[in-house]
Amino acid sequence: MMFLQAIFLFSLLISSSHASDLDFCVADPTLPVGPAGYSCKKVSSVTEKDFVYSLGTPGNTSNIIKAAVTPAFAPTFPGINGLGVSIARLDLAVDGVIPMHTHPGASEILVVIEGQLCAGFISSLDNIVYFKTLFKGDVMVFPQGLLHFQFNSGKVQAIAYVSFGSAYPGLQITDYAFFKNDLPTEIVAKTTFLDVAQIKKLKGVLGGKN
Amino acid sequence: MMFLQAIFLFSLLISSSHASDLDFCVADPTLPVGPAGYSCKKVSSVTEKDFVYSLGTPGNTSNIIKAAVTPAFAPTFPGINGLGVSIARLDLAVDGVIPMHTHPGASEILVVIEGQLCAGFISSLDNIVYFKTLFKGDVMVFPQGLLHFQFNSGKVQAIAYVSFGSAYPGLQITDYAFFKNDLPTEIVAKTTFLDVAQIKKLKGVLGGKN
Amino acid sequence: MMFLQAIFLFSLLISSSHASDLDFCVADPTLPVGPAGYSCKKVSSVTEKDFVYSLGTPGNTSNIIKAAVTPAFAPTFPGINGLGVSIARLDLAVDGVIPMHTHPGASEILVVIEGQLCAGFISSLDNIVYFKTLFKGDVMVFPQGLLHFQFNSGKVQAIAYVSFGSAYPGLQITDYAFFKNDLPTEIVAKTTFLDVAQIKKLKGVLGGKN
Amino acid sequence: MMFLQAIFLFSLLISSSHASDLDFCVADPTLPVGPAGYSCKKVSSVTEKDFVYSLGTPGNTSNIIKAAVTPAFAPTFPGINGLGVSIARLDLAVDGVIPMHTHPGASEILVVIEGQLCAGFISSLDNIVYFKTLFKGDVMVFPQGLLHFQFNSGKVQAIAYVSFGSAYPGLQITDYAFFKNDLPTEIVAKTTFLDVAQIKKLKGVLGGKN
Amino acid sequence: MMFLQAIFLFSLLISSSHASDLDFCVADPTLPVGPAGYSCKKVSSVTEKDFVYSLGTPGNTSNIIKAAVTPAFAPTFPGINGLGVSIARLDLAVDGVIPMHTHPGASEILVVIEGQLCAGFISSLDNIVYFKTLFKGDVMVFPQGLLHFQFNSGKVQAIAYVSFGSAYPGLQITDYAFFKNDLPTEIVAKTTFLDVAQIKKLKGVLGGKN
Amino acid sequence: MMFLQAIFLFSLLISSSHASDLDFCVADPTLPVGPAGYSCKKVSSVTEKDFVYSLGTPGNTSNIIKAAVTPAFAPTFPGINGLGVSIARLDLAVDGVIPMHTHPGASEILVVIEGQLCAGFISSLDNIVYFKTLFKGDVMVFPQGLLHFQFNSGKVQAIAYVSFGSAYPGLQITDYAFFKNDLPTEIVAKTTFLDVAQIKKLKGVLGGKN
Repeated sequence: MMFLQAIFLFSLLISSSHASDLDFCVADPTLPVGPAGYSCKKVSSVTEKDFVYSLGTPGNTSNIIKAAVTPAFAPTFPGINGLGVSIARLDLAVDGVIPMHTHPGASEILVVIEGQLCAGFISSLDNIVYFKTLFKGDVMVFPQGLLHFQFNSGKVQAIAYVSFGSAYPGLQITDYAFFKNDLPTEIVAKTTFLDVAQIKKLKGVLGGKN
Repeated sequence: MMFLQAIFLFSLLISSSHASDLDFCVADPTLPVGPAGYSCKKVSSVTEKDFVYSLGTPGNTSNIIKAAVTPAFAPTFPGINGLGVSIARLDLAVDGVIPMHTHPGASEILVVIEGQLCAGFISSLDNIVYFKTLFKGDVMVFPQGLLHFQFNSGKVQAIAYVSFGSAYPGLQITDYAFFKNDLPTEIVAKTTFLDVAQIKKLKGVLGGKN
Repeated sequence: MMFLQAIFLFSLLISSSHASDLDFCVADPTLPVGPAGYSCKKVSSVTEKDFVYSLGTPGNTSNIIKAAVTPAFAPTFPGINGLGVSIARLDLAVDGVIPMHTHPGASEILVVIEGQLCAGFISSLDNIVYFKTLFKGDVMVFPQGLLHFQFNSGKVQAIAYVSFGSAYPGLQITDYAFFKNDLPTEIVAKTTFLDVAQIKKLKGVLGGKN
Repeated sequence: MMFLQAIFLFSLLISSSHASDLDFCVADPTLPVGPAGYSCKKVSSVTEKDFVYSLGTPGNTSNIIKAAVTPAFAPTFPGINGLGVSIARLDLAVDGVIPMHTHPGASEILVVIEGQLCAGFISSLDNIVYFKTLFKGDVMVFPQGLLHFQFNSGKVQAIAYVSFGSAYPGLQITDYAFFKNDLPTEIVAKTTFLDVAQIKKLKGVLGGKN
Repeated sequence: MMFLQAIFLFSLLISSSHASDLDFCVADPTLPVGPAGYSCKKVSSVTEKDFVYSLGTPGNTSNIIKAAVTPAFAPTFPGINGLGVSIARLDLAVDGVIPMHTHPGASEILVVIEGQLCAGFISSLDNIVYFKTLFKGDVMVFPQGLLHFQFNSGKVQAIAYVSFGSAYPGLQITDYAFFKNDLPTEIVAKTTFLDVAQIKKLKGVLGGKN
Repeated sequence: MMFLQAIFLFSLLISSSHASDLDFCVADPTLPVGPAGYSCKKVSSVTEKDFVYSLGTPGNTSNIIKAAVTPAFAPTFPGINGLGVSIARLDLAVDGVIPMHTHPGASEILVVIEGQLCAGFISSLDNIVYFKTLFKGDVMVFPQGLLHFQFNSGKVQAIAYVSFGSAYPGLQITDYAFFKNDLPTEIVAKTTFLDVAQIKKLKGVLGGKN
């Protein structure tokens, strides 16, 4: 059949120059990482599993914050490398809280799946706090790099998904940054205005030293 | 108190130059739109409501595709303007389908909330189809601009959320593009290789002309 | 001469820190690929040939679409890696057609060199079709990710060049995506509303299975 | 027919939230310009003509450089606004030359349509000159911001198209920058090492003052 | 003279299409702001003053932090709008401190001009603190969005300049975000693990309520 | 203590998925370079020294331009890789000059530390020269890719720092590009309109051939 043959020729012509195109770039963590993300696995070894990840298991909230963050970020979820999106699951038991934090690399969009949350962010301009109680199906957006928080404001377990406009949003929890390392207490005090006793107490809890 | 006064001076110094900074840019649809999105509402008239949207109401699936897409895109959801994220809710009744489509402006990440879906995308290289049945809590990523689909492969209603790495992902449903406008049937036939009868049938269903 | 010596010193000072600057990044296909493109060949082995490519040979249009696309994309044309541009040549015999397709990664600009073309694209908003007959010297732009087509609307051979605002624009031909792979016919039918007979016919022509 | 009605509902649902999406952003030069380009014309007043431009008329080469550049840039070609591509036509009579210049905002890709050109660019690292004689159908790429040139090296008229990975590539001709304004001759001399007589001569030719 | 006339024609040809090109986009604060920055002032009313700003006056450090930040950000410094850079001056008296803060929109590069500083940032991965004492002429870089600080570790006044890879880097001082607004003390306590007494003390100092 | 244990669990959960996040990407010059920059050193071998660089030593201005540029660019300063900023020090003795040049990859912001400078840039539109005498503490911005210059206009040594909105700004000195390589004199003459004698003179000084 002439049609078949012709298309076949046409196809060969195009695909030869497409040998390594960039429809996607599934992360190969054994190769170098660069500023734009991980190097790409060969397309011939990519499967549908690279693009799928399970967040179906609730995070363990039997802890003092009564909450858990379960992220699907690269390289654990290799298919998102370079695609400009990622996602995480939040589980918050009653009284659970996701403490003040920032994502240096992306804005976040949250949707409540179960229960209710109080969520908010703080602008850098005039330190305005935009916060609101969110119910099932409510969506809230948190601008890139700004301090924000979520806590369970209801009487039952809460679940939410948070998505990011980057495959590498980052996550900096302020308490961890201040109290869960060896930054000397005097420097923490000097740069945060917090009392030394307060700092030492939280360093004790979080495992920070000095 | 000297401390208070001092910080106050410091504060004045900084905030004066921050009068219009860009923590966020809530869309004001009455002002001009540009390539990067909508113009920004004045910060003084921004409230927490601008950053919150409800996707809590199921879309109406009493239709032939037995499915509904309910997006939270700008300008309906003004707070996401310029922030590089957006979200939509998918409701699929039993046998429901989100037909083949692309998002020209962003990659998509999907999470299943209820039921099960079969979802997939087609690479432009060698036309490989990456598809998989997804269950509650499963996440799948769809690279920017590539054809993809979702359909309910289970026996109960399915719900999913899809997030995008852009506030303006766009949505082009292939069937609508081909059959729901006045592109002459002969041009559709010439450029898609579909039979004229097939085109006329689908134009009839979808309201296309010529 | 003092001037010479002085400039020489100045030069040394600057170039030492420039040992691997990024004027360009000629693709080395033997090194890893990342989300931003191929790794760079050492500058010492780059020649002017890396930046030059020939599209002077007409594509073979002795096929059923009576057309050919000859791209100058990375890595075949290594000098464009990372530079945000690429180009392809279109040859369309009388009645030739470049079928409906998208470029997921870039907008396209076309210029007619010989003959005449009918070209158009379909917006995702209201499915408006913007199409026009183009003559020698006419330029048309096709926005990123949107479905578009070109066909020879004249009585002689047509030639055009299409340029892209990316070195990796991608190319997804809708017919290939639907009919030139092993995506099961029932899934194609469900997600495109096309009749099974139509699908099987085109799968037959294009070599698709299942 | 139930199918029609159902799709119709589905359509309404989607398009309502798409009222101002950003498939494209055709420039409206009467509205403000921003760092990302011109404000967008309302979609309802966009036509296919906004996306089409003619470069079919040869530029006038009856001048001393025996060459002409005819650009299709925004806002003259409003459809390319924000789309990341643009194009220009080069006409070079025998002995014609496009003088040394840069494009501050984009890389360039050139294709020869008629005749032959000698074209080259100069790297900032070690000042290497990559230049080559190009014939009909040859393509050459010029990295962003680097000095480059083209001249007719053949015995007949030459035509080329140059495309850019930006709708606003800019164009800075070195001679114009140095000699076609009121920058005092002594400053030109001090910052270029050129002789005053040379500067005054070229200022005279190009209309510069002081 | 033929040369003059010819160039003149060539010039007209080019500049006509350049009527509003985007060499720069000096902010006009009376026009709308968008996600990419301020709208541009007309080029005809731009002067060299738009591109120059004085940071020559020391900031007032007679305050409790004994430090001052004097920024040159848009719109106060209109010429930087859209250009991807900005700068600020730091003055730190003996014992002065720039408290813990982030820049949501850009990385920072600091150079010490006088005196000595201790400066550091905290990674989000494992909360590692990278800090060092810096002397005159030392440069340090702080990655986008990460918590960082500077304090005078010497015995004389210190001066530094900090530059940013954005015209809109933003500045969020953690203490201000936590204590200088009306975010209820119980929410601050819940989301920071700080003691209520500590919060009330700092709210008192910084003017926060509730 | 229950709190400690709980946070610990929470921490493990998060950090496991963060094994290679992208807070920063310190250049490892032994690994491949790509269009977005150098590959990243392993975080475990990164130290604070990677983020610090000294520009404290004056450049040697005992040369004919009586000036020196001392850059802190990647890979010499590995911590800035991928962070979108870089910096250089300018030393200008009395009568010193930084000749006409461009940065193809970034805008520049300059601050005067000592002495006075005359600095300016030339727009591509109408070749307007924006120049001004700058004193200690004055800041000036130079848009990406445009020709600009600085020279000492005072009676004492001048020092300035110039920062860039890219880790790879590039630097192309026009005189070096024209006269410090083997580009044949006849091509330089043809593409710059300079006299052959002038070209040969400057080639002689700068070491160019042909």
